[in-house]
Amino acid sequence: MTEQSLGVAVIGTGMAGRAHAAGYRTASTLYDTNLPDVRLAAVADLNAESARDTARRYGYDRAETSWQAIAEAPDIDVVSVVVANPLHREIVEALLTAGKHVLCEKPMAPTVEDAEAMTAAAAASSQETGIGFVFRRSPAISAIREKVLSGAIGAPVHFNGHYWCDYACNPAGPMSWRYKGGHGSGALADIGSHLVDVGEFLCGPITSVRGTVLATQITERPLPVGSAIGHAATEVSDTFEPVENEDLVTFTATFASGATATLSASRVAYGLANSLGFELFTENGAATFDLLRAGEFGFRDGSSSTDTAGVRQVPLGPEHPYLTGGMAMDFPGVNHGQNDLFAWQARAFLEQVSGQKHLPHLASFEEGLRNIRVLAAVVESARADGAEVTVD
Amino acid sequence: MTEQSLGVAVIGTGMAGRAHAAGYRTASTLYDTNLPDVRLAAVADLNAESARDTARRYGYDRAETSWQAIAEAPDIDVVSVVVANPLHREIVEALLTAGKHVLCEKPMAPTVEDAEAMTAAAAASSQETGIGFVFRRSPAISAIREKVLSGAIGAPVHFNGHYWCDYACNPAGPMSWRYKGGHGSGALADIGSHLVDVGEFLCGPITSVRGTVLATQITERPLPVGSAIGHAATEVSDTFEPVENEDLVTFTATFASGATATLSASRVAYGLANSLGFELFTENGAATFDLLRAGEFGFRDGSSSTDTAGVRQVPLGPEHPYLTGGMAMDFPGVNHGQNDLFAWQARAFLEQVSGQKHLPHLASFEEGLRNIRVLAAVVESARADGAEVTVD
Amino acid sequence: MTEQSLGVAVIGTGMAGRAHAAGYRTASTLYDTNLPDVRLAAVADLNAESARDTARRYGYDRAETSWQAIAEAPDIDVVSVVVANPLHREIVEALLTAGKHVLCEKPMAPTVEDAEAMTAAAAASSQETGIGFVFRRSPAISAIREKVLSGAIGAPVHFNGHYWCDYACNPAGPMSWRYKGGHGSGALADIGSHLVDVGEFLCGPITSVRGTVLATQITERPLPVGSAIGHAATEVSDTFEPVENEDLVTFTATFASGATATLSASRVAYGLANSLGFELFTENGAATFDLLRAGEFGFRDGSSSTDTAGVRQVPLGPEHPYLTGGMAMDFPGVNHGQNDLFAWQARAFLEQVSGQKHLPHLASFEEGLRNIRVLAAVVESARADGAEVTVD
Amino acid sequence: MTEQSLGVAVIGTGMAGRAHAAGYRTASTLYDTNLPDVRLAAVADLNAESARDTARRYGYDRAETSWQAIAEAPDIDVVSVVVANPLHREIVEALLTAGKHVLCEKPMAPTVEDAEAMTAAAAASSQETGIGFVFRRSPAISAIREKVLSGAIGAPVHFNGHYWCDYACNPAGPMSWRYKGGHGSGALADIGSHLVDVGEFLCGPITSVRGTVLATQITERPLPVGSAIGHAATEVSDTFEPVENEDLVTFTATFASGATATLSASRVAYGLANSLGFELFTENGAATFDLLRAGEFGFRDGSSSTDTAGVRQVPLGPEHPYLTGGMAMDFPGVNHGQNDLFAWQARAFLEQVSGQKHLPHLASFEEGLRNIRVLAAVVESARADGAEVTVD
Repeated sequence: MTEQSLGVAVIGTGMAGRAHAAGYRTASTLYDTNLPDVRLAAVADLNAESARDTARRYGYDRAETSWQAIAEAPDIDVVSVVVANPLHREIVEALLTAGKHVLCEKPMAPTVEDAEAMTAAAAASSQETGIGFVFRRSPAISAIREKVLSGAIGAPVHFNGHYWCDYACNPAGPMSWRYKGGHGSGALADIGSHLVDVGEFLCGPITSVRGTVLATQITERPLPVGSAIGHAATEVSDTFEPVENEDLVTFTATFASGATATLSASRVAYGLANSLGFELFTENGAATFDLLRAGEFGFRDGSSSTDTAGVRQVPLGPEHPYLTGGMAMDFPGVNHGQNDLFAWQARAFLEQVSGQKHLPHLASFEEGLRNIRVLAAVVESARADGAEVTVD
Repeated sequence: MTEQSLGVAVIGTGMAGRAHAAGYRTASTLYDTNLPDVRLAAVADLNAESARDTARRYGYDRAETSWQAIAEAPDIDVVSVVVANPLHREIVEALLTAGKHVLCEKPMAPTVEDAEAMTAAAAASSQETGIGFVFRRSPAISAIREKVLSGAIGAPVHFNGHYWCDYACNPAGPMSWRYKGGHGSGALADIGSHLVDVGEFLCGPITSVRGTVLATQITERPLPVGSAIGHAATEVSDTFEPVENEDLVTFTATFASGATATLSASRVAYGLANSLGFELFTENGAATFDLLRAGEFGFRDGSSSTDTAGVRQVPLGPEHPYLTGGMAMDFPGVNHGQNDLFAWQARAFLEQVSGQKHLPHLASFEEGLRNIRVLAAVVESARADGAEVTVD
Repeated sequence: MTEQSLGVAVIGTGMAGRAHAAGYRTASTLYDTNLPDVRLAAVADLNAESARDTARRYGYDRAETSWQAIAEAPDIDVVSVVVANPLHREIVEALLTAGKHVLCEKPMAPTVEDAEAMTAAAAASSQETGIGFVFRRSPAISAIREKVLSGAIGAPVHFNGHYWCDYACNPAGPMSWRYKGGHGSGALADIGSHLVDVGEFLCGPITSVRGTVLATQITERPLPVGSAIGHAATEVSDTFEPVENEDLVTFTATFASGATATLSASRVAYGLANSLGFELFTENGAATFDLLRAGEFGFRDGSSSTDTAGVRQVPLGPEHPYLTGGMAMDFPGVNHGQNDLFAWQARAFLEQVSGQKHLPHLASFEEGLRNIRVLAAVVESARADGAEVTVD
Repeated sequence: MTEQSLGVAVIGTGMAGRAHAAGYRTASTLYDTNLPDVRLAAVADLNAESARDTARRYGYDRAETSWQAIAEAPDIDVVSVVVANPLHREIVEALLTAGKHVLCEKPMAPTVEDAEAMTAAAAASSQETGIGFVFRRSPAISAIREKVLSGAIGAPVHFNGHYWCDYACNPAGPMSWRYKGGHGSGALADIGSHLVDVGEFLCGPITSVRGTVLATQITERPLPVGSAIGHAATEVSDTFEPVENEDLVTFTATFASGATATLSASRVAYGLANSLGFELFTENGAATFDLLRAGEFGFRDGSSSTDTAGVRQVPLGPEHPYLTGGMAMDFPGVNHGQNDLFAWQARAFLEQVSGQKHLPHLASFEEGLRNIRVLAAVVESARADGAEVTVD
């Protein structure tokens, strides 16, 4: 590795992988700090055509068809791992052994055991690591976190959060890997993991969960003709297979601080394509977020006179993290999208790797492990008919 | 009692009692059915001044200072009981014995035992009875229920509901009866009872609850100087007493239909004076409600073309229950408030008593008992660290 | 007339007339001031059945079939005139001559000449008079006005207002009196008059208007079979008659203060049954209102820190005019509807008549005349292809 | 020029110039069509440091300090002109003479004369040209336009639009070029030009305007110490100079179709950093847009049953223009921002230049000229106290 530049690679070229690839391309155009030169070195995917296409579109030098090729390449310093999470451990361990800095997509791993091993491997290495909890880059969520940490609105009291999607609403939607695996590998792992991280990002560690309901609304699905890509329905056959994991999960939780959480994640929330949101009540204030209206957040404190007090919709502007200098047009009210979150995340990891800190660094592997432990506790609580399970 | 007219009385002249008193006054002006004449006969309160003032303002013939005077009065046919719920059983039983029709404010009783006794007394009598779950009169909630019952959007899948208030946010707010009594007598009984009823009104009976967290945010409060009236802070002393019940309750539930609920009720939701709301997802649709914007509801089904599908905000109009003929001005977009709900509720009970059914009758004592059983199960689940408790 | 009590009558029993009738019934239950006793004496309508029904529903002692019977009745002190506005002058003048206090529904008159005569008659009498600009009773609009008058947010800069309805959208909707009369007698008189009054209520007198466009979208309508009642479509014939007035009016205006207005009123605003709203920008703040969400208003001033500044949705509560004591349930978040506005208006006129002032008195006949002058200037500007017309 | 690749340059490196520079960088990553290779050749600015910084950040090969260097460079095929609009004509004419394809930022020119000359020059050349009306790239506005053009909701009836900003609210904000130039060069040219284009994009050509009010709220401003950059306040001196143009403009307009417009643009809309929005009513439907919530649009047609009819908030998804394939993550609910609009605009111009049409091409110079003519008519109407001025 060279001090003059950073070679970047992305393993996995599904939609999230492409978002990482695009993110690194844009990351170097953000802010004015002295980031080392970024070389877009390689993307890798078992599907050679997808790898080639992704490399071409986002301007990467070459396409590979194995993650090993990335691990072995001497010109690559920084790698995003964006593949099915049962593969995370093997790839991440090998990359760390090969001396790469590793950004691992969420959820960190399918089991606590895997996540522990990965965390140990990261601790034993001298490289930088992080988990891709991309909503930590939301300017609105960041702004709310700053307010909470500042003490301006007192300690959290109640976090009421949801992540609701509708990609599994259609009973004719084909069977895919999303519907395979045991309890906890469905809505909980896919979107619940984000929700848990947002909750802990704002309110600190969760120490116990209770009352989990894991529900499967649509119990069998037709096999696709050909392969199912992404969330979309494709042509399906007459053969049905059982859905093995949950469409919906809901539970309560307690934070170390004593605050309470009410949480639900669903992939059968009719009509909501991608709805992450929460209401946070604190001792002296409140904050709300709705991903559909990510350019603003709700906020209330005690600063207004009684007769004009109300939840205010705060449009994101230069006063908030990420925006100033983080986009070409960065004045208030220009909005941003989820692709910008990936660019900011890529930028944060490049800064982390190069010893800078303009943006907050990524969630650590320890935090990723904690997230997996919370998810495991949720599943265990469900097995115990909702009884409390402590998170170590 | 006479067939020619109905004599009406209200026991209790706190804010809710006054709302009942006003409701009967307005009820006879609503709709064009042949309701018997309504005589506003009496109001009763231990506080003679409050009784007199209420009688004068709402045009009742006389004020009484005991509920017994109401029970014994031969000119009274219909009575609303709007006093602290530990008193409900004795008063309701006596009124039924005296041959009165009884509208009992929610929650029905402080214990399952009381509610069972009241239900038995009602079953043994020949009069009409009902529980004052006033949000059943919400035109929006009614419209959503009609859609669910019609099958137009399939069976319920997930009911995510809240009732959040802020009347207990201020640590300097004085000790009152609201903060006394064991677990379950706080936010759960006060507002959680409404939330549970709305959930069952839309999705049918709850069969089990899980994962209850009962949290007390502010653990002691100063004694008032003089008496605390309503929710408002008054002058307080230096002496503090412990808060005995919960500020916040959150739990999950399962309906007989298999649908899942995520529920929370809080009296420490900073900045929200009176926020009842929910999102209901069904197999083929969704509906939302927000009490702050009670003149509309959110609705989604499959009727729109894909490129214009979205949650639509449906303004209430003549097509919806209650509005047409139910107010002097009844065209779309005129709005209504919580006082209108009490007028519609009073009207519904008067219709019930006189053998008419223009509006849906009140929740029965059986339904009120079920509500109390759900609340008791929530408390029991909390004692068992969140484990599932079945509702008989 | 007696000093001990006030006899009240309503002339006209259409929907607005019934709202007045209901308003007086409720008015005496509001607030705790020492209002004289209110006797609901009579309602009058040429349609005897409508008069009888209205009297019965709202508890008035008798029904009359002529306004003259009201003018001549010695037991009547206060009269609301709620008939077609070409009849206002004759009736109001006669009532004033007969010594009645007169509340005249808006718009005051069809011509400036009529309005001038009525104003002179009022000035020459010793009774109280007022115009029924009912939106002055909106708690939200009142709260905004208080903020503007207090100077807290500086002088008005731009008032952008609309009143949009859809009752004329359907080309098959039958011909009625609403569609007859010259330019200015359509959307401008019906709803534009309210909008102009709200603008002047908040920003002071309009001194000139410009750029009027009066557009008729649906130029002819079928004659009804039978009589058209209210806004609703009834059975129609094959015979069409021309629509004589405007479906849509839009114009700009300048206030005496130098502030600017952008205004439009439409009865062909597809999908909006009753949408009155505005954005008001001042030197140091802003306020917004939307009738569909009348229980809150938007407000912004400079009191928040930069990173949490935003338009706040202020829920109406006890701090705002009208609510405390003005309804049985009067805590924050209980909402209200347009029928409550009529009750508050009736109360305000009863207070005005009895020399009290708990609520602001009604718009004076002088203000009603000013409103008619602005409407006339709008029509004159339209005739002059939009050129400026000064309001005297 | 080579057939194998397109060399791109941007003249002007203010905020909008940087947005163009970033747009070309991203444009080649969007969609899968066979776009020629794009070379990021050069950026130019009189401020050498700004030019160097912009070239470095967005990966352009070189920085120039004159537009002439761009015109003369043989490796440049496509040029965005993003400088003060009095300079547009000279630069655009020279670039066209030099054989470049030219994307000219809006407004096209300060005078009709300039715009006519530029249009003639474009017509006489064989290259592609376009005007940077970037809101034509809004997925929501595009979706609404498609619905209008499809006839699904009938002809436009009323377009009520605004563009409200607050960058001029602070009286202590320093004098800058934004406040210089005659009537029409202020809010009208800066943001009103966008609003007029959006109106014509949706409803067709405007044929006359009426009733213009041009108001200057803050009549003088302090000179800056040093140079004012962008919208931000900098240190100011004690010397004041007069503001020469309008802070606020409002007017009505008529479209060739007969539809009516109500329009206002303001730079003194307290609290609104960047609020572009409109309500469009058509014969059988309605659509709304709010830039702060650009990821959705409001829509209403006649497809819902009466009891669930309402304005629906349509979240943008793959069914809508731009999104599918236009971003790395492109599923519903991922949102986008104004920077994405510039990327889509750059892409559209690159497609136009290379004879493709995946996205709609840019507004033509003819359309840019029409826009200038409407703006000129607005100013002329203001001079005539609001009288109607026809747009040729």
